[in-house]
Amino acid sequence: MNNTLIIFGGTGDLTHRKLLPALYNLLYENHLPEDFAIVSIGRRPYDNNIYHNEIYNSLQKHTRHPFKEETWNKLKNHLYYYELDFTKDEGFCDLNDYLNKIDTKHNTNGKRIYYLAVAPEYFPIIVRNLHKSCMKTEVKPNLVIEKPFGKDLASAKALNKMIVSAFGEKNIYRIDHYLGKEMLQNIMVIRFANAMFEPIWNSNYIEQVQISSYEDIGIGTRGNYYETAGAIRDMVQSHLLQILSLIAMEKPENLNPETIRNEKVKVLKALRKMTPKDVYKNVVRGQYESYRKEVNVDSNSNIETYLALKAYVDNQRWRGVPFYIRTGKMLPKKTTEVIIQFKDLKNSLYPDIQLSPNYLVIKVQPHERIFVRFNAKRPGNKFIINPINMDFCQNCEIGTISPEAYERLLSDVMKDDATLFARWDEVEYSWKFIDQIVSAWKDVKPIFPNYEDKTWGPKAADYLLAKDNHHWINLDLEDEYENI
Amino acid sequence: MNNTLIIFGGTGDLTHRKLLPALYNLLYENHLPEDFAIVSIGRRPYDNNIYHNEIYNSLQKHTRHPFKEETWNKLKNHLYYYELDFTKDEGFCDLNDYLNKIDTKHNTNGKRIYYLAVAPEYFPIIVRNLHKSCMKTEVKPNLVIEKPFGKDLASAKALNKMIVSAFGEKNIYRIDHYLGKEMLQNIMVIRFANAMFEPIWNSNYIEQVQISSYEDIGIGTRGNYYETAGAIRDMVQSHLLQILSLIAMEKPENLNPETIRNEKVKVLKALRKMTPKDVYKNVVRGQYESYRKEVNVDSNSNIETYLALKAYVDNQRWRGVPFYIRTGKMLPKKTTEVIIQFKDLKNSLYPDIQLSPNYLVIKVQPHERIFVRFNAKRPGNKFIINPINMDFCQNCEIGTISPEAYERLLSDVMKDDATLFARWDEVEYSWKFIDQIVSAWKDVKPIFPNYEDKTWGPKAADYLLAKDNHHWINLDLEDEYENI
Repeated sequence: MNNTLIIFGGTGDLTHRKLLPALYNLLYENHLPEDFAIVSIGRRPYDNNIYHNEIYNSLQKHTRHPFKEETWNKLKNHLYYYELDFTKDEGFCDLNDYLNKIDTKHNTNGKRIYYLAVAPEYFPIIVRNLHKSCMKTEVKPNLVIEKPFGKDLASAKALNKMIVSAFGEKNIYRIDHYLGKEMLQNIMVIRFANAMFEPIWNSNYIEQVQISSYEDIGIGTRGNYYETAGAIRDMVQSHLLQILSLIAMEKPENLNPETIRNEKVKVLKALRKMTPKDVYKNVVRGQYESYRKEVNVDSNSNIETYLALKAYVDNQRWRGVPFYIRTGKMLPKKTTEVIIQFKDLKNSLYPDIQLSPNYLVIKVQPHERIFVRFNAKRPGNKFIINPINMDFCQNCEIGTISPEAYERLLSDVMKDDATLFARWDEVEYSWKFIDQIVSAWKDVKPIFPNYEDKTWGPKAADYLLAKDNHHWINLDLEDEYENI
Repeated sequence: MNNTLIIFGGTGDLTHRKLLPALYNLLYENHLPEDFAIVSIGRRPYDNNIYHNEIYNSLQKHTRHPFKEETWNKLKNHLYYYELDFTKDEGFCDLNDYLNKIDTKHNTNGKRIYYLAVAPEYFPIIVRNLHKSCMKTEVKPNLVIEKPFGKDLASAKALNKMIVSAFGEKNIYRIDHYLGKEMLQNIMVIRFANAMFEPIWNSNYIEQVQISSYEDIGIGTRGNYYETAGAIRDMVQSHLLQILSLIAMEKPENLNPETIRNEKVKVLKALRKMTPKDVYKNVVRGQYESYRKEVNVDSNSNIETYLALKAYVDNQRWRGVPFYIRTGKMLPKKTTEVIIQFKDLKNSLYPDIQLSPNYLVIKVQPHERIFVRFNAKRPGNKFIINPINMDFCQNCEIGTISPEAYERLLSDVMKDDATLFARWDEVEYSWKFIDQIVSAWKDVKPIFPNYEDKTWGPKAADYLLAKDNHHWINLDLEDEYENI
């Protein structure tokens, strides 16, 4: 379906590094509509030529597919720059006239997609102006909104109220770019397209779930943002709770976006409530040694750069199974993964042998991989049982690069498919879960920093699991692979 | 435990290619008892020197571990040749005197292991003579007996009666060398040491089991033997029914050899009986085009070189699950493997997509491998679900060679561990199953040959499965591997 994509923040980093490269890749694969237009809006006094030159240079560095002049020329013919100071109320009616002309030129049938790729403080003024009477369109426009979606439940509600009254829930696409990642899309397929896993995907057979996402670098130049967010808002409220809901959800009746999102919300609603006392027991926060010396960071900052928590999904399927979530900056390596550990066998046939548990690991990054670890006899004249690793890596080989999350997400917005976008109630319930933690934290000043750079976070995170006779699982298969 | 191994057939092929190389490998790994003696008995007028020279040459070709003079010298010091025409009754009392001397020399405490590595027609005379009063020993000797164990139930019973009365069931080790193979030993471990597989190992989740063992060559120079055996005795009665019983057995209470063999026998007893009509329906025999032109083969031979059958294990766990067995000579490739196909999902979430079933494949040869095949999303901007192969190969890499079956078996005999040897009732029930097929065949003359050399056997074998909406599964992962 033809449409015009209007990007607020057209000269920004996200547009340069993610959005336009994604559109280039989609065009390269013939996955864009027959006709379309992209209008990048910025405050800089550029014309199309200058803008095209800038984007031309960025694409060289950031496209997944080879850079071809032919594809670029096609893209250029659909790409416009429009100068507008969107921090002011003036100029939107003129923008509307301009968009109407673009619409006619590219046969986009009045279908607009507004993409807010700007800092959240500009959301209100832009949304208010887009809702002006001079900007009315016959076809309802879509609104794509980047995170952070609020900074707590109250602010998220206020933001939501504003955008819903202007666009309607049906037309709102809240980006959580993790949902566009191949391996997150794969979670449902692995669970629901395999007879081997469906029967054992419950508390009878699963001992624990670990959802980890950590990095080996610090916050870099993002101090301003990070000081207001911290690990809990930056990673947990959005990405990691989304992963949890995909792992834990019931099988939906069908693939309808609403049906799927209904099931995901049920998981978030079933997350066990925590009193402040529960929070002290079940949530560990940390800050790396050198954080307070980072640019734009308060030298007494109490913002957490590490978080580990234990959650329970209180329903039939999951009662009693701990879901451990862990995220951190400046850890020894960069990984995002889900580890499913299966329960030990009851009445083992090999009572004298300490058998390794079975694992299913879904690795999101740096490589997209699926591991299964189970036990087999070690070849040889002694009877030894060893775990063996079955490994499928879909992007380890050179030349096989999976689509970027934004390709899938942009393509879905254009098709009005909201499956991979967070619905309001998903955001709402995840903020509810987060708020109880943040509010418990307010009463206790943390002793920060509490972990050295490039170490595995505060010791308390280990004790958190040790209480349940668990430990953070580091299968280190990635390392094994890289050593091959 | 020190002992003397007495090999009847000391100049034969099995001794040269399997038994002595296995003993060499065990010695290389320090897996032989502190002291021991090997007495090879043959009819040729050799002395120790001549025999040692012959064996020296054979070992160069057939040992798994590197040939080291040091290990050979050790072995040589324990290896004796004794000339005896074991087709006659004379000479056994002298042999006994000789063995007593060897016993003293090597501190083997009177423990003898007689190994019958000769053609089955010599079993009776040897056993009768070993039972002579002049051969009485204080410690009961073990008897190791090679297949074929009879040619039907009646002859097996007669043979068994003779050896049991001479040695006692406890001291008899019936060789089925497949049981010594690494991957057959692995079947129990995979099944009973993994929480992932135990819950789905039954008719609720398993659609079918295929046990295949085929070769890409003909019978070679083994015409004499093969004309009396055929595929059914050569492969099915022994090796393939053993594999079936390992796949289908209940979890034993413990690892005691008798407990394990009790469970295996239960499977063979539960094999569904077949009337002649059932045999015509469920068993397909074939003969390759050029078989009748092979050396020592009757030019009108009706011996089968191919067999495919459908069996059912009539118990709670397996009711309704077909076990397909297939074996053949002169097929397109050489493979022994077990394929477990899991049932299709009920109420698939992806009703418009033809999902591939999940498979677990245990490959015995040419490589020892375990595959798991399940479904995942294919990376890319189109939503496609593809099966992926998780593969563990334990001897694909150069330099990693698993022990030969005979190493394990010889080592077990010396430890009096009969787990990997067929107990009489296992042999008995497998003959009962085989006899009903052979006797049904007697009434119908096959139209042989019925498959071309290097093809997949008679068409009827495909129809056999097609009736149940199944087909012979050729995952061809071996080929994929070899193409890497």
